[in-house]
Amino acid sequence: MDTPYKFTIAYDGHAYVGFQLQPGGVTVQSALEASFKRILGEDVRVVPSGRTDSGVNAIAQVCHAVFCTEKAQERLEKKDFLLRINSILPDDIAITAATKAPGFHARKNARSKTYEYLILQSRVINPFLEDKVWRVALPLDITAMKRAANYLVGRHDFSAFCASDSTAKDKTREIFKILIDKRSPAPFFKLPRESYLRLSFTGGGFLKQMVRNIVGTLVDVGLGKTTPEQIKNILKSKDRRLAGPNAPARGLYLRRVIYD
Amino acid sequence: MDTPYKFTIAYDGHAYVGFQLQPGGVTVQSALEASFKRILGEDVRVVPSGRTDSGVNAIAQVCHAVFCTEKAQERLEKKDFLLRINSILPDDIAITAATKAPGFHARKNARSKTYEYLILQSRVINPFLEDKVWRVALPLDITAMKRAANYLVGRHDFSAFCASDSTAKDKTREIFKILIDKRSPAPFFKLPRESYLRLSFTGGGFLKQMVRNIVGTLVDVGLGKTTPEQIKNILKSKDRRLAGPNAPARGLYLRRVIYD
Repeated sequence: MDTPYKFTIAYDGHAYVGFQLQPGGVTVQSALEASFKRILGEDVRVVPSGRTDSGVNAIAQVCHAVFCTEKAQERLEKKDFLLRINSILPDDIAITAATKAPGFHARKNARSKTYEYLILQSRVINPFLEDKVWRVALPLDITAMKRAANYLVGRHDFSAFCASDSTAKDKTREIFKILIDKRSPAPFFKLPRESYLRLSFTGGGFLKQMVRNIVGTLVDVGLGKTTPEQIKNILKSKDRRLAGPNAPARGLYLRRVIYD
Repeated sequence: MDTPYKFTIAYDGHAYVGFQLQPGGVTVQSALEASFKRILGEDVRVVPSGRTDSGVNAIAQVCHAVFCTEKAQERLEKKDFLLRINSILPDDIAITAATKAPGFHARKNARSKTYEYLILQSRVINPFLEDKVWRVALPLDITAMKRAANYLVGRHDFSAFCASDSTAKDKTREIFKILIDKRSPAPFFKLPRESYLRLSFTGGGFLKQMVRNIVGTLVDVGLGKTTPEQIKNILKSKDRRLAGPNAPARGLYLRRVIYD
């Protein structure tokens, strides 16, 4: 019988042009499908909770794949499956969990997602984290950023924060919660005079580059280039050119996907 | 007047054959000296608290350099010196502090050093930390490792834990303290079913590869290959072949150097 399996996946997005298969670039999906083929002997389509853009990371992306052959299902049930598949996956992708999940659909059943964005506040490079954060040298007004974030929570047309090449027809999305806190993500690697900002976005779904465009705009608010109140007008304008810059992909992490 | 300046330096050691100048490889020292030459206009010798071996990292290495020209000293005193020097240093080296320090000698004045070693306990790769830790898949008996570590604290001839090509004549060193704890070094990047071990070594000085040979031996104890009590005999034997393997350089960090 054709049975879906649910996979939880972590990846460092640097080397990939995103999750989804596309011509002209290595994707997380192509790496996963090639490994499944090799270990399970079956051509399979991996369906994620949603694509992540080029360079974006995931701590816990969720995918499913339907396996039709008995051989593949037997191998999936074996205790050493995770060990075997991870031993042939590239070092920047890891499958951290795999379970049989009848009726499960990674995209259709997803209720909400949390993305986290890491900002390092420092004039000096951190050799251990430079490729994992957006480093902002000038001080940020966090109170203003939190005030600005409040205007974005809720159900809005997020056209102003959507990549111009998005194919989404309806640009209405709902953000349930935005949290901004200063906890250091990796205290072991913290250098003198550094501080960190973690921005956490939980919502029903996000448009292409929406989180990074929001982060870029909130940083403009933190730098005093934009007032918190202007966020209302930017939202209303539906004009991408009024929002701030697209924050770099390396600082963005898909933290979790919530299912019913 | 010739004045020494004290520098605190962080580096990711991957790309370097160690700290010290040597033929046939890029070193941290050569990168630092080239940057000083370019920004300060003076050829200068950088003296570290001690060398670090090929591939070893530093959170806070301490160095000094004596500058003879007025021009160099003026530029060093400028507020933007750190910004300027870091902007031309490679991304895997950062100078985090620079101060005028009359009479200071980075090696001769050093009283103690702390090295930390990171072990990741997991069967699965962590895409974000794989190049920063030693991943050990099998479970480790931490109680046994702590018992074994106790035999190493104090003043001993550490020949059994010294690289065979070391040029040190006297292999007696003193370890003041060894701590082993399970705190996660980077909770943001923690994946399911992972745990971490941090081994911290504070001592008056360390022989070539001594910390990594001790870590390799303690892991052998944790795996049950060596009993804690055998450590006494290994020490006494002064025979490198009796100790465990040399733990990989990527997990080792010079955490701090203490001066009077």
